[in-house]
Amino acid sequence: MSPKITGELLRQLRQAMRNCKYFAEPIQAYIVPSGDAHQSEYIAPCDCRREFICGFNGSAGTAIVTEQHAAMWTDGRYFLQASQQMDNNWTLMKMGLKETPSQEDWLISILPENSRVGVDPWIIAADQWKNMSKALISAGHSLVAVQDNLIDAVWTDRPERPSTQLRTLGLEYTGISWQDKITALRTKMTERKITWFVATALDEIAWLFNLRGADIEYNPVFFAYTIIGMNTIRLFVDLKRLSEPALRDHLQLDSPSKPELSVQTFPYESVYTELQAVCAALGPKDKVWICDKASCALTRVIPKGHRTPIPYTPLCLAKAVKNATEIQGMKMAHIKDAVALCELFAWLEKEIPKGTVTEISAADKAEELRSQQKEFVGLSFPTISSVGPNGAIIHYRPLPETNRTLTMNEVYLIDSGAQYVDGTTDVTRTMHFGTPSAFEKECFTYVLKGHIAVSAAIFPNGTKGHLLDSFARAALWESGLDYLHGTGHGVGCFLNVHEGPCGISYKTFADEPLEAGMIVSDEPGYYEDGSFGIRIENVVLVVPAKPKYNYRNRGSLTFEPLTLVPIQVKMMNTELLTQKERDWVNEYHRKCREVVGAELERQGRKEALEWLMRETQPIV
Amino acid sequence: MSPKITGELLRQLRQAMRNCKYFAEPIQAYIVPSGDAHQSEYIAPCDCRREFICGFNGSAGTAIVTEQHAAMWTDGRYFLQASQQMDNNWTLMKMGLKETPSQEDWLISILPENSRVGVDPWIIAADQWKNMSKALISAGHSLVAVQDNLIDAVWTDRPERPSTQLRTLGLEYTGISWQDKITALRTKMTERKITWFVATALDEIAWLFNLRGADIEYNPVFFAYTIIGMNTIRLFVDLKRLSEPALRDHLQLDSPSKPELSVQTFPYESVYTELQAVCAALGPKDKVWICDKASCALTRVIPKGHRTPIPYTPLCLAKAVKNATEIQGMKMAHIKDAVALCELFAWLEKEIPKGTVTEISAADKAEELRSQQKEFVGLSFPTISSVGPNGAIIHYRPLPETNRTLTMNEVYLIDSGAQYVDGTTDVTRTMHFGTPSAFEKECFTYVLKGHIAVSAAIFPNGTKGHLLDSFARAALWESGLDYLHGTGHGVGCFLNVHEGPCGISYKTFADEPLEAGMIVSDEPGYYEDGSFGIRIENVVLVVPAKPKYNYRNRGSLTFEPLTLVPIQVKMMNTELLTQKERDWVNEYHRKCREVVGAELERQGRKEALEWLMRETQPIV
Repeated sequence: MSPKITGELLRQLRQAMRNCKYFAEPIQAYIVPSGDAHQSEYIAPCDCRREFICGFNGSAGTAIVTEQHAAMWTDGRYFLQASQQMDNNWTLMKMGLKETPSQEDWLISILPENSRVGVDPWIIAADQWKNMSKALISAGHSLVAVQDNLIDAVWTDRPERPSTQLRTLGLEYTGISWQDKITALRTKMTERKITWFVATALDEIAWLFNLRGADIEYNPVFFAYTIIGMNTIRLFVDLKRLSEPALRDHLQLDSPSKPELSVQTFPYESVYTELQAVCAALGPKDKVWICDKASCALTRVIPKGHRTPIPYTPLCLAKAVKNATEIQGMKMAHIKDAVALCELFAWLEKEIPKGTVTEISAADKAEELRSQQKEFVGLSFPTISSVGPNGAIIHYRPLPETNRTLTMNEVYLIDSGAQYVDGTTDVTRTMHFGTPSAFEKECFTYVLKGHIAVSAAIFPNGTKGHLLDSFARAALWESGLDYLHGTGHGVGCFLNVHEGPCGISYKTFADEPLEAGMIVSDEPGYYEDGSFGIRIENVVLVVPAKPKYNYRNRGSLTFEPLTLVPIQVKMMNTELLTQKERDWVNEYHRKCREVVGAELERQGRKEALEWLMRETQPIV
Repeated sequence: MSPKITGELLRQLRQAMRNCKYFAEPIQAYIVPSGDAHQSEYIAPCDCRREFICGFNGSAGTAIVTEQHAAMWTDGRYFLQASQQMDNNWTLMKMGLKETPSQEDWLISILPENSRVGVDPWIIAADQWKNMSKALISAGHSLVAVQDNLIDAVWTDRPERPSTQLRTLGLEYTGISWQDKITALRTKMTERKITWFVATALDEIAWLFNLRGADIEYNPVFFAYTIIGMNTIRLFVDLKRLSEPALRDHLQLDSPSKPELSVQTFPYESVYTELQAVCAALGPKDKVWICDKASCALTRVIPKGHRTPIPYTPLCLAKAVKNATEIQGMKMAHIKDAVALCELFAWLEKEIPKGTVTEISAADKAEELRSQQKEFVGLSFPTISSVGPNGAIIHYRPLPETNRTLTMNEVYLIDSGAQYVDGTTDVTRTMHFGTPSAFEKECFTYVLKGHIAVSAAIFPNGTKGHLLDSFARAALWESGLDYLHGTGHGVGCFLNVHEGPCGISYKTFADEPLEAGMIVSDEPGYYEDGSFGIRIENVVLVVPAKPKYNYRNRGSLTFEPLTLVPIQVKMMNTELLTQKERDWVNEYHRKCREVVGAELERQGRKEALEWLMRETQPIV
């Protein structure tokens, strides 16, 4: 991987920073966040501005360019990748290390007095703007909203914004009509005396209208905004997309059932002016809900006295708790996904000894096998297919120049998932096709103990996921080991593979309590730099538990694994497992046999079935 | 317990609220917080203003009086007690219940337009003032700082502010001279470009100057402020206290060794005007450190542009990490404390069958036995001595009207501690002197498993205590049980029994990472309302751990128990313990025998030694 040459681009950007076409006075620094105007995690090519300017293409990172310096902040997952993708013009700022300054502190330490720091207000979230602005002001500087994006100004061949075909989802997939979702939203607005709600997150809008798109790779979403009033529904989207009769029918565009359920459509770009119009007509007591992570640009349209910023919108909360139809769909999707993975592993076992399988070809094979399953739409994120030392790069993605061959001598880690019309999957398995070393087995077993500790945990209703994070680490910590990422994230249903408001991580305190029906991942790991990586990931469903007692009638919860793919016994040092942990493994494998075995049988996939039966034999 | 009659007091207070002697315009509401001007947890009688006005004497609560209403907010620990201590003039506001309005919401719902709400700015913290003021302003009201305290105006027999004799602590107790502490503080100030530091917390001031007082029961502190500059030390204290030659010598008042270590003394009350003088002379870049929990009155003296509020002061952080001398002192104090408790339990075993021991007499006996130990100063908090159902009241304190007799049929919980010149103790033991029920043993064993899970945990350097909280609950959760308090708090060294900035609780995210040398409590519990309470509490020291591996050279930590009092085996269902847990219990009891046994021997306390030997026999 050779770094991107950025000298000339930086020269042009710095010129733009001095160009009074864009602002009254030149700016001394320009911040390039990694998001789009919807604060999406995955973004369309036209929005990859941070990658364009510095070369680093990981999912998280912020670049800041000043007259003299260029620096890029990212987290532990990406230290290696970023250092390889950026040239010497850039300083890599390793977040999480004690010696690394925050963006604010760094700016304050190098800027001349009274500096102006620019940022595109559409791609910085309102809460980030607030923090950055406060820090700069307290040091005598200021944060300036630059309406024209300066990266776009120097990006001559910037791609168009995608506008893919929209797909409607019926009740057999969603369980609730969009009309009922709107009504439920309005009930919550009434309860909180809210008159308008502005939705900017793409997955929330897709979920609300029971629509899916393909504007962003891996995420079945489409570029849109929506503004909901008590009698009004305004949808902002490329209007060309709404010509199809089935779609017009789904949204009842031509014959709304009730006036308050009539969807008014507007061009995507007009959200700013329409929101201005809504705000101009607000009564003195009217309140507008907007997520505190929405763009600074839209947030600031709403006058402060009328603005009610919320950390999680009612759509985010409603979407997180899956209904019975969605849970059934997620279960089906995970069975199909398990079929594909059993086939993959059976195939790998056969092919690896020939020396012809690489990280890339294994990933391609996984995709091919998944694509044979019913209602397959695409991958849910780029497959992490990594051998030996590449496995220690947490968010590794094989490229021709890094591509390693799978052998009998190295650990193989594959973290992959797919979008099916009925659900989204995300699974990691770590395998050895020869004989793992004692240390590899030891680490794998600690990770497995952590995985089980979370998956089998029983905890009271109302518990936040972050309180479970240490369970995943206890066995590793006891041996002086750890992993530098969170343990789990929310998973959408034929939606984004990462979603809020719940998760399992030591990094946050603001997650919402886990509730029955929520779906998260459970994915502890261990990474030995330069040697191997281990991660064991299942998607799990929050379900009620029935322990012996019921303190204060609060009720208890636990997890049910949706992912049903064998965990390689060869990698376990079973002596390190307690009887309870062995029982868990055996019960898990019994369920894989029963459920996935039946489907492999039905699909006539004999080799994979044999592999499954062999890999799920009870351990003692 | 009969409620306090408050009709006449409220009439006088409301008259004061309209009396233009105190302000330009009358106020419509007056807030009475529970703290003193130093935001102390325990307060002196002269500062018990909330108790004076409403009758409720719990440690947490805020009273608000308007023309028509009087209301008092407190939390779940105190609902019963508050309802018994307040008369019908008062509405009890039960915090934590959904239907209970916040103070802000309640004020806004009942106040006439443009109301003025008064509060004494000395006893409201700056961060609380900010929140309250913001809420009131957004509803068209205002928060007014009333310089004269209106409770004092109607409190005719208000006690004097205590001014007890000060005690100097030599290097043999503190390990570091106050001069070196000042120098270390100034180094941190220089690093952060801070020119002045204002200390308002009484334990920080006592720690800094290696002085102790007895102004507040249980807390060996004295009323004082200090302002530290790079060449200046100003101590604000009742000057009468400084006449003793030993004290003048300790502070080098008459012959400072260096000019920058010369302590200038001022009357306690002059801190406001002196801080004004300091602030008047600030250069344009000068910054003043003050804790964000300091009083609003002092905080607002510092102009906003010069004010650097911090959640934890450098003194708070330095004080939390005990040096070798302090650790040695804490160990000695805990051995003496264990001697007293072994004696107590041996005595209880003999006396309880006679039916003559009550909660109060047991607590008195514990104090008497502790007072026989060298360098005993007093208790570190009011003893919780509780039998049967009283044990389920988490912050119970026996009173003549609630006092129960200890019997062979009920669980006894004693949470107690003392101040010795070399250290502070805090220990809880739960015992049964007859035959505990299977359920009592089951619950006790889950609590013990939680206690051990924290105490034996190994975790990376840099881990915050809140990440360990769930370890204490896992065994309870698995059976559907829990306890509604945190798991641990910082403990001072011959200082406050509760101190920041570390702790073990699910409630906070802002604690500082644990470091070797910090001392916290480990005290999970279980409370069966109306029946019994269980808590097992040790004070533990954070120490380096040496596990097999050392990931990224971060190093690991664990805990070493300082408390060395047997945990009653009779209460354990040893079948529920793992081998590792049994090993922990046996090793703990071995250490109790070895260390406390030797001291009992030395002191010739034979009966207690026999009790100790019997209670520490290994379990299988």
